Amino acid sequence: MSHSITSPPDQSYYNFKGANMEFSPEDLELPSCKYEYLDHTADVQIHAWGDSITEAFEQAAIAMYGYMTEIDTVDIIDTQEIEANADDMEGLLFHFLDECLYIFSVEPFFIVRKVVITEFDKESFKIKAKLFGEEFSLDKHPQGTEVKAITYASMQVYDKDDQHELFVIIDI
Amino acid sequence: MSHSITSPPDQSYYNFKGANMEFSPEDLELPSCKYEYLDHTADVQIHAWGDSITEAFEQAAIAMYGYMTEIDTVDIIDTQEIEANADDMEGLLFHFLDECLYIFSVEPFFIVRKVVITEFDKESFKIKAKLFGEEFSLDKHPQGTEVKAITYASMQVYDKDDQHELFVIIDI
Repeated sequence: MSHSITSPPDQSYYNFKGANMEFSPEDLELPSCKYEYLDHTADVQIHAWGDSITEAFEQAAIAMYGYMTEIDTVDIIDTQEIEANADDMEGLLFHFLDECLYIFSVEPFFIVRKVVITEFDKESFKIKAKLFGEEFSLDKHPQGTEVKAITYASMQVYDKDDQHELFVIIDI
Repeated sequence: MSHSITSPPDQSYYNFKGANMEFSPEDLELPSCKYEYLDHTADVQIHAWGDSITEAFEQAAIAMYGYMTEIDTVDIIDTQEIEANADDMEGLLFHFLDECLYIFSVEPFFIVRKVVITEFDKESFKIKAKLFGEEFSLDKHPQGTEVKAITYASMQVYDKDDQHELFVIIDI
């Protein structure tokens, strides 16, 4: 394929910014766009821990909010309360985080700076929690990554004497 | 868990920005960070097409570069040439895009605005291409998403009389 100049080039060719080699007008002609991006998928694994499983759960929720925005921009102005129930510890983590996500997904689109679990029943797998934060505002809070869903994939919850930590993957 | 105020609060408590309800100093105390993000994975499927399979391949490469930066910021200042070989059409697409990725990954970190395939041998599965662009510079080109690898996952290449299109998933 030859790129020699066969006709007087348009003046704009010679003015081309920064050009340091010879290009023909054809060289510089840009193709139309015949592509699109489909099916973007992504996930991230959150690892959270604490002095108790309660603290590890609280930390996991904050980790999730930390993906949605720069959490240091969130002030504590209002609160929301949530509850979660399940049949086991993994289910409880799933539903707890799902409730935390839901609070952000519906009006007033509450973004959270601090999570306090006020009740953690390890027998009947029930959590009550208070979320401290404020209404999400693009003027104030940098747009982070949308969290699409919590998943059970490779989920791990450890609640032993010397180990209170968890791993959970969220779709983003 | 009670959050009543049991001692004279610090003055900063009352000055808290935008506070419109009562919070105790304890409420406003922020927890330390006990979480981390692990194992982020993501991919995106590129769909490209053209009047020929040659054009569809060119478009797929541009789609990939379009993920790395805002492609309109890339000027045509220099060129690079690449070659790719394979045993079949899917392998050819893989190695062609992999070469395009490689050009960006090594000095001079060449970012591409236009791809012209100068030779496309459908019998021996060989491509020669000329890449038009310039050295990548963060001052000029917005940082997009890092493309980590081309994949064979769900790859589809159609080269029929009335259908010249492809689907390829890239890890990002």
